[in-house]
Amino acid sequence: MLVNCVAYQEGRKLADIQPREIHEYVRRPECFIWVALYDPTPEELETMQREFGLHELAVEDARHGHQRPKIEEYGDSLFVVLHTVELAEKGLSVGEVDVFVGRNYVLSVRSRTERGFADVRARSEHEPELLRHGSAYVLYAIMDVVVDRYFPVLDTLDGELEEIERRIFSGQNNRAIIESLYVLKQKLMTLKHATDPLLEVTSKLYGGRVPPLCAGLQEYFRDVYDHVIRVNQSMDSLREMVTTAISVNLSLLTIQENEVTKRLAAYAALVAVPTMIAGIYGMNFANMPELTWRLGYPLTVAVMAAIDGYLFYRFRKTKWL
Amino acid sequence: MLVNCVAYQEGRKLADIQPREIHEYVRRPECFIWVALYDPTPEELETMQREFGLHELAVEDARHGHQRPKIEEYGDSLFVVLHTVELAEKGLSVGEVDVFVGRNYVLSVRSRTERGFADVRARSEHEPELLRHGSAYVLYAIMDVVVDRYFPVLDTLDGELEEIERRIFSGQNNRAIIESLYVLKQKLMTLKHATDPLLEVTSKLYGGRVPPLCAGLQEYFRDVYDHVIRVNQSMDSLREMVTTAISVNLSLLTIQENEVTKRLAAYAALVAVPTMIAGIYGMNFANMPELTWRLGYPLTVAVMAAIDGYLFYRFRKTKWL
Amino acid sequence: MLVNCVAYQEGRKLADIQPREIHEYVRRPECFIWVALYDPTPEELETMQREFGLHELAVEDARHGHQRPKIEEYGDSLFVVLHTVELAEKGLSVGEVDVFVGRNYVLSVRSRTERGFADVRARSEHEPELLRHGSAYVLYAIMDVVVDRYFPVLDTLDGELEEIERRIFSGQNNRAIIESLYVLKQKLMTLKHATDPLLEVTSKLYGGRVPPLCAGLQEYFRDVYDHVIRVNQSMDSLREMVTTAISVNLSLLTIQENEVTKRLAAYAALVAVPTMIAGIYGMNFANMPELTWRLGYPLTVAVMAAIDGYLFYRFRKTKWL
Amino acid sequence: MLVNCVAYQEGRKLADIQPREIHEYVRRPECFIWVALYDPTPEELETMQREFGLHELAVEDARHGHQRPKIEEYGDSLFVVLHTVELAEKGLSVGEVDVFVGRNYVLSVRSRTERGFADVRARSEHEPELLRHGSAYVLYAIMDVVVDRYFPVLDTLDGELEEIERRIFSGQNNRAIIESLYVLKQKLMTLKHATDPLLEVTSKLYGGRVPPLCAGLQEYFRDVYDHVIRVNQSMDSLREMVTTAISVNLSLLTIQENEVTKRLAAYAALVAVPTMIAGIYGMNFANMPELTWRLGYPLTVAVMAAIDGYLFYRFRKTKWL
Amino acid sequence: MLVNCVAYQEGRKLADIQPREIHEYVRRPECFIWVALYDPTPEELETMQREFGLHELAVEDARHGHQRPKIEEYGDSLFVVLHTVELAEKGLSVGEVDVFVGRNYVLSVRSRTERGFADVRARSEHEPELLRHGSAYVLYAIMDVVVDRYFPVLDTLDGELEEIERRIFSGQNNRAIIESLYVLKQKLMTLKHATDPLLEVTSKLYGGRVPPLCAGLQEYFRDVYDHVIRVNQSMDSLREMVTTAISVNLSLLTIQENEVTKRLAAYAALVAVPTMIAGIYGMNFANMPELTWRLGYPLTVAVMAAIDGYLFYRFRKTKWL
Repeated sequence: MLVNCVAYQEGRKLADIQPREIHEYVRRPECFIWVALYDPTPEELETMQREFGLHELAVEDARHGHQRPKIEEYGDSLFVVLHTVELAEKGLSVGEVDVFVGRNYVLSVRSRTERGFADVRARSEHEPELLRHGSAYVLYAIMDVVVDRYFPVLDTLDGELEEIERRIFSGQNNRAIIESLYVLKQKLMTLKHATDPLLEVTSKLYGGRVPPLCAGLQEYFRDVYDHVIRVNQSMDSLREMVTTAISVNLSLLTIQENEVTKRLAAYAALVAVPTMIAGIYGMNFANMPELTWRLGYPLTVAVMAAIDGYLFYRFRKTKWL
Repeated sequence: MLVNCVAYQEGRKLADIQPREIHEYVRRPECFIWVALYDPTPEELETMQREFGLHELAVEDARHGHQRPKIEEYGDSLFVVLHTVELAEKGLSVGEVDVFVGRNYVLSVRSRTERGFADVRARSEHEPELLRHGSAYVLYAIMDVVVDRYFPVLDTLDGELEEIERRIFSGQNNRAIIESLYVLKQKLMTLKHATDPLLEVTSKLYGGRVPPLCAGLQEYFRDVYDHVIRVNQSMDSLREMVTTAISVNLSLLTIQENEVTKRLAAYAALVAVPTMIAGIYGMNFANMPELTWRLGYPLTVAVMAAIDGYLFYRFRKTKWL
Repeated sequence: MLVNCVAYQEGRKLADIQPREIHEYVRRPECFIWVALYDPTPEELETMQREFGLHELAVEDARHGHQRPKIEEYGDSLFVVLHTVELAEKGLSVGEVDVFVGRNYVLSVRSRTERGFADVRARSEHEPELLRHGSAYVLYAIMDVVVDRYFPVLDTLDGELEEIERRIFSGQNNRAIIESLYVLKQKLMTLKHATDPLLEVTSKLYGGRVPPLCAGLQEYFRDVYDHVIRVNQSMDSLREMVTTAISVNLSLLTIQENEVTKRLAAYAALVAVPTMIAGIYGMNFANMPELTWRLGYPLTVAVMAAIDGYLFYRFRKTKWL
Repeated sequence: MLVNCVAYQEGRKLADIQPREIHEYVRRPECFIWVALYDPTPEELETMQREFGLHELAVEDARHGHQRPKIEEYGDSLFVVLHTVELAEKGLSVGEVDVFVGRNYVLSVRSRTERGFADVRARSEHEPELLRHGSAYVLYAIMDVVVDRYFPVLDTLDGELEEIERRIFSGQNNRAIIESLYVLKQKLMTLKHATDPLLEVTSKLYGGRVPPLCAGLQEYFRDVYDHVIRVNQSMDSLREMVTTAISVNLSLLTIQENEVTKRLAAYAALVAVPTMIAGIYGMNFANMPELTWRLGYPLTVAVMAAIDGYLFYRFRKTKWL
Repeated sequence: MLVNCVAYQEGRKLADIQPREIHEYVRRPECFIWVALYDPTPEELETMQREFGLHELAVEDARHGHQRPKIEEYGDSLFVVLHTVELAEKGLSVGEVDVFVGRNYVLSVRSRTERGFADVRARSEHEPELLRHGSAYVLYAIMDVVVDRYFPVLDTLDGELEEIERRIFSGQNNRAIIESLYVLKQKLMTLKHATDPLLEVTSKLYGGRVPPLCAGLQEYFRDVYDHVIRVNQSMDSLREMVTTAISVNLSLLTIQENEVTKRLAAYAALVAVPTMIAGIYGMNFANMPELTWRLGYPLTVAVMAAIDGYLFYRFRKTKWL
């Protein structure tokens, strides 16, 4: 689906154009065209390939989708694959944005994502002094927003861990917590798949040798790189804390087991001792003087109660009960 | 066993030829020959060595088999070892493909694998504009298909993990699950042995200095490299999740132990308390007024039942039963 | 908030100046100006940007805060982000110091920290022969003090671990210890976030290619680097020991469980054996000679006591009680 | 002990010579001498040092032994330390081979190993076209055989792990298995000490800058390197599987504990319920109608049996028994 | 405290000199001075700084102590920090040696260590042909002896691990073992702090670019490097085995728990069954024919004994007792 197809000149919008007009505008050196596709049909992609002269392998990647985040140079032009990560009902939903960038065109192909880049376009059009940098600036703007959208996801996962910690240390050590930890770990792995390769992608766009297209925007791409590093470090911390939480939880479960065992034993003792005494006075010896005492029975019951009372006090003191 | 021996010119099939004719075609600069062997006899290998002038060490590697995936340059020619991984009855079955590539020949030696490369040849012959790139293109095509065949294996392992997760969190924590996790880990190690060294192999074929033979096809080999990276990242995730699953499962087992202990204790209490009461009224004191009450017995039994009922209610409420 | 704004010449304080006078002093080549801001308003930052000609992206970072520690070159000038770590009521409190350094100015922007750098300024003004090095020396002095302030934090964490160890091995294996270990781990992760990126930051300021601004002070920056390495190594050790402590603690919990089980079993035996004997003499057989013995009852009780005494002695000897 | 001392020319054996004749042969440029020592006396080493002009530090290393595998260049000559690993009664036995290689001599000093290199010499003498490469070829041949001898050791360790796995999953979770896992880990560490440093050693002999002595044999040394990598990868897999086996075994032990607990509880129930019923009918109430029924006793026993039968059936069904 | 202050010429001792005479000897190009200080006063350090022209930052490091091992070049001269590790009553005691090396002086500053370097000096004076290399040789000699003194420490820790293993596998799984493992781990971390940074230090003294001072002694420093690597590898093994020992020990504890549980259950059964039988014959049914049998009582006791005998035999056979 074609979302937008706009020609820009000197950082200002020139016109909404039709795909079949693209080749006219591409010829003008002072112009650049920014096309946005969403879940495109093969025909749409083919049109774009023809109009912009895109490389076969890159187009095929965009057609198939499910690439890992990467950056590839095809002569003067760049092909960048990014993953978007969005919070979904169950776990995280991963989408893909493929960006083709040439001297005077940008083509973004979005698939499996909810949120588009209309806001990126709007913001860019309000800053013509930046948009004047041309197509590379649009690439920066898209990368920037994709990376910035990882932060709320990360915050959500961080919040989930905090909630789990709260439950762990408040003594709720049940199956649900363990499953939550496992699911959190899975989400972190999903996010990692999106962001880990981005380190390499962004580091190719500043410092040392950079694609000529992006040469003037190194400080901007360094900024994106910085954000990617921050995402990765936070994620590594989260993963390490999840691992620690799992092992800490196991220790707490073992403590809980100890406590249960002790409490059970205490209650067992409270029952077993009177049973033993009762057993003794249930013996059938002919000669058991206590049996004939007038107060034998109440005394015995009193002794039972006294012993249990004492045991109960002891167990309380040593925290078994 | 000789599978195929075909001469190509300008990307088109020239003729099926006999091994003994090879040297005639090899001489023609515009031609290249593509030979496929399957579990070859030493004599067949010797013929090929003579016809193509292969290096002794490379031929010896092919003869012995069981090499690790690698790429070696012998002067102008390349020797590439790849591992194929196929799903078998029990675990994974690892095969080997050794490819000798020279300016105008490709020799693939396949062993211990079910699936051949007939489809690679067929597809290549349908794309003469690509096959025109010569022997290096055939190397690419073979590597591409070998790597692509890892993905269904990976998907199967992924499916196995999901099935195990499902069983773990549905409360089925038995020996079979643990054995499944262990076996899955073994399979991942097997796959890793095939794919890990491929990273190095493929990275030598694009970017920086590449063998002159492959110079024009860097973008293709980069594509293979990309797929290898994807395989490796998925595999690393899988391994990390297997490790997490093992430790999570241990926590669940400990929880289960706690639950069993509590349930047992609850049942023990339901039995122990009436036993104690019965013991008390089994004492032989001369003076136990209750014993002579008319309703002493049914009352006692009723008390027992009432206590057990109350205990049962309490145990239910605290989820011990 | 403007904390200070001072012009220096030849390492000596020239005058406290107003922000609006800055551009006059900046023009003089032999002068440099050192401004300190604390939680600045956007207007204050804007003034500084204008007076010193700071780069838009750097100023934006300072405005937003929450950057990771980093160093960035913008032409001749440097932008350095540092994290301060202070002990707070609960856990650690992380602040930020952003330093802009040019040929003849230093601007430090401090936020979310308690302690300022008044002492750095005071000390520097007492050593004019060092302050003569100019703005880079001030950068060094600030980095030095930020890093030095990590050490007492590290010592506190080290002390916490020692206290936890003491409790673990003195047999106090309760929930609080495990929570302490977890919290300690969290603090270490917090500290790591501050200090890890500093390794890269400081290593860019000595050896190999350094920013021209810092060229003459390499030995000083190497000193800071050394301290950062020391912090990192100590922290890695601490993290490894925390992990070890968690697993060691689990082993101790299992031992404790064994001990509790044994002790319970021993007490159970002391009750069960007399109960069994009593049961036997409670049987209603017509012909049980012992029942009619005169000393049958006391003898039986004596036997019970003797058996329990023996069992108690045995349990003590094998350390079950 | 002097094992051999042979002069070679053009790849063919010239003569067995005496150590004191060495200097005569060393002078001839077309000759090279291959000396093998086994646990040499200090005097023997001194003779060799004098005859070949070996470097003091290298000779001292050979005298002391217990070096780590390494390669050192002393001017034109090389000093290589290798570890041999042999299967012994208890664990693995590590020996050492120190090889001094110069333009026209090879001196191998073997210590603490059973197997010598007589077969290497024999094989080399049968391939004069290879031995013609001179002393570097002998170095290759020795390294090749040392590395090849790691494979059977590795296979044995692999077999041990398989045997352990078989026992673990057949339910034999006893102390012996855990000790086996620990001992296997120890053996792997021993092997690792021998093979890990070899990676660096062999990688210095091919690719990039190589010692001039070995320049013509790079493809051979690459072959050794390949084998070392294979050993290392197999070993890493083994170590990872041992770690996994240890944690999997712990899970199985916990399952076993659960099973034992359940079985015990089931048996306890089978005894406790009749005991409770018996207790009830042992009460001394005057008015217990059942006691006077004719079939009271057999009925009660029948009820006890019925309850136990039912419980047994239930326990069987839920796999507790 | 000044330990020694000696001038050397041509590798031979010239004279014991006074600190105030140093500047006279330092001027002579063929001379070098070797000074050893132990826990020096600030004045002594100041004297040395003046006499040798030491760099302020280096002297400050020596004054403060507690540096990490490092090497720093100040112009032509070197500043090296080493850690000594000695076995102490409790754990390991870490000392520090700071060495200042210039073209014709060596100053070693020792603190917090028991053993000095008198033996290094003695040995060096006996080998004038080596000492002739000048001050760099003294640096080598000191580094060599510091590193060599790690080996007995390592052997002691190795011995401790073996002792712990012996106790673990002989079934002594108590708290003391776990504490020993933890303490051993701590000691390894202490040693690691001393030796890890030495890798970098020594690697700067051979191969590639080395400080001009040490240029002629590369083979000696490579030797030290080799020893440092050996220490590090042994230490890594030890650490990995300690980790393995901790987890293996946990498995053994779980096995022990299983065994205790089984044994307890077995004994419980031996008591519970007779109690149940006794309970049955303690019932007060009017019509219980066995009660009136003459041999009822002895028969019942015999049955009890028989059942217990049989159970005992079964428990023995299945190793529960």
